[in-house]
Amino acid sequence: MAFQVLRKEGFARLGQLTLAHGVVETPVFMPVGTYGVVKTQSPQELKQLGTQILLGNTYHLFLRPGLEILEKWGGLHAFMNWQGPILTDSGGFQVFSLGTLRKITDEGARFRSPLNGDEIFLTPELAAKIQQVIGSDIAMVLDECIALPATPAQIESAVKRSAQWAERFFEVPSLPGQKRYAILQGGTSLEFRKLSWELSQKLPMDGLAIGGLSVGEPHHEMIMILEGLAPLLPAELPHYLMGVGTPRDILEAVRCGVDQFDCVLPTRNARNGGFFTQNGLLNIRNAEFKWDSGPIDENCRCECCSNYSRAYLRHLFQVKEILGCRLATTHNLYYYHSFLKQIREALQQGRFQAFYEAHQPVLAQAYPDRWERSLEENKKESL
Amino acid sequence: MAFQVLRKEGFARLGQLTLAHGVVETPVFMPVGTYGVVKTQSPQELKQLGTQILLGNTYHLFLRPGLEILEKWGGLHAFMNWQGPILTDSGGFQVFSLGTLRKITDEGARFRSPLNGDEIFLTPELAAKIQQVIGSDIAMVLDECIALPATPAQIESAVKRSAQWAERFFEVPSLPGQKRYAILQGGTSLEFRKLSWELSQKLPMDGLAIGGLSVGEPHHEMIMILEGLAPLLPAELPHYLMGVGTPRDILEAVRCGVDQFDCVLPTRNARNGGFFTQNGLLNIRNAEFKWDSGPIDENCRCECCSNYSRAYLRHLFQVKEILGCRLATTHNLYYYHSFLKQIREALQQGRFQAFYEAHQPVLAQAYPDRWERSLEENKKESL
Repeated sequence: MAFQVLRKEGFARLGQLTLAHGVVETPVFMPVGTYGVVKTQSPQELKQLGTQILLGNTYHLFLRPGLEILEKWGGLHAFMNWQGPILTDSGGFQVFSLGTLRKITDEGARFRSPLNGDEIFLTPELAAKIQQVIGSDIAMVLDECIALPATPAQIESAVKRSAQWAERFFEVPSLPGQKRYAILQGGTSLEFRKLSWELSQKLPMDGLAIGGLSVGEPHHEMIMILEGLAPLLPAELPHYLMGVGTPRDILEAVRCGVDQFDCVLPTRNARNGGFFTQNGLLNIRNAEFKWDSGPIDENCRCECCSNYSRAYLRHLFQVKEILGCRLATTHNLYYYHSFLKQIREALQQGRFQAFYEAHQPVLAQAYPDRWERSLEENKKESL
Repeated sequence: MAFQVLRKEGFARLGQLTLAHGVVETPVFMPVGTYGVVKTQSPQELKQLGTQILLGNTYHLFLRPGLEILEKWGGLHAFMNWQGPILTDSGGFQVFSLGTLRKITDEGARFRSPLNGDEIFLTPELAAKIQQVIGSDIAMVLDECIALPATPAQIESAVKRSAQWAERFFEVPSLPGQKRYAILQGGTSLEFRKLSWELSQKLPMDGLAIGGLSVGEPHHEMIMILEGLAPLLPAELPHYLMGVGTPRDILEAVRCGVDQFDCVLPTRNARNGGFFTQNGLLNIRNAEFKWDSGPIDENCRCECCSNYSRAYLRHLFQVKEILGCRLATTHNLYYYHSFLKQIREALQQGRFQAFYEAHQPVLAQAYPDRWERSLEENKKESL
């Protein structure tokens, strides 16, 4: 079996996912490497930070460098010189983000290339083909994502269309060694989530993803869906929560049986001077850090915290030096990987529940969603 | 003695410069770390690349982070976490670059802070004080730089004012452990250069710099000045050619007895996709590299050339990923440091003349100045 559950505690699982380019310990965080690079980081650095598996964006890689280049190199691994596992999304979320610039029918999604205006018609079959050319270890079905809030009719339509697309996706002969995951849609309606599962369950999937969350709904609604889905998710398959989230989201989702995560938060916040800590996002641009000779986090062993003061890091952002953004990315990815490692250790030692109870209240306060914060705080923060 | 000449061949010297933060083998290239950081690189990486000594810009550091911060940290070394030697310029060149925004009198240079409009009055005494707060291993006198071409009267005036400023600079009690260099001005007139030397020679200098070159004059005029100065430069002191230059410039200057160099070319070109090679600057954005699976330079052992193809590097620049700029900086600094190391080895082995004869024609073709190129080529290139 590609996926093995080593320990269970409630719905939470410690697992091992064996892929073409290596074994991944789960629960795992997958940094986002949109264009065949995790912003500011080299593949060697990612490995040193504890990265086990990367995410690549099908939509972006299709545009640049494009399939011809990737074909010549025999896939993304060789092109970017990353020897570990890669998961690719299907491009569905990016097409959804194009808003009115795309037209979605039962056939697929039609849009124009932002580079040269060429018409592109992304179908489930093309999404499968692109991901085969990329040569990812895990490929995702093409799904239809919708914005929340949405009407029941809109949600139902997206669930059914996604199920049809998933069937077409799995009809494409698979690439040897490549795992394929289905995706559940259904917004924040548990009923539609169950429908999505019923329509998907017969697919020959190697893993199951939960899509269409963390797209604007309150935190508690996401948790409600995850709690509702937890008993339904197939126990023998890895569960991947797409595009999520804060450390708090991740802790809750692990409790609900999720094994894989990806999110732009650690890399995107780094570019704006946001450093992840147990006590929330620290914005290094704040004037209070001008004289601060301490590290971002005294207990952190990353390259950034081992070598540089808050005052120096603030200076780097003040003068717009790239090293600031690099060091913030280094710290944030280290923070995420260390947090997941702590979770795996707790699961290994049968004390995940205690870990959850100790950390959940702290993280809930450190990472409130925008519905839990004042207008004033929302203006200042940008999680 | 702080400076020891170990070998001589013609005017070229192999030397050893003992500074407060370490010993520097000369001839040496000093990367430019304007704001307390060499763009995109961490101090550890610089050391691995072979950097022996950094340059910091007094003007920029005075503005940000400012003297109060540097004083609290006890200098730039601790603030930026670089344990090796640092040379600081005096701010003269940056003030000169402000053009009509500054007013220069015999007293000093008056200008407004680009940050907050505050009036700043940079005097020889203040330049000395700032560099003492920075705590650099080598401090430079404040000089008056002028643009070329200039009238004889303008050049003479700058030479005389620079000499007066240098006297005032050396009247400031020195910081224990800090070396102080005088600067020769005089444009491309050997006569005024000699005057500058006559007016400076009694100063208690630890080294002598040649300023005001590589500011727009043709390559051959710079070489003529260097050749004319070579027999005049004090043999027991280190000679530093400020702000120079291409690998070709450096080879010629070593032949004329220069020991220290700084230049923004390797870091600035990196940001635009320019990679230094023996055959000239390779612009990775060019379409011809789209399918090129080879490294920038097959014989280069740097991290960039050991791991990435030209096609991938071009892709990084196409999608504006910071890793591209980082890897180009890594390669270019490695190239410069390796080139200087080859020169030192040739001097050590008494074969500098042969080295010069083998490399000079190649580099002259690879790095023509804008006077030697066609209008067409000048449009394309930006050395």
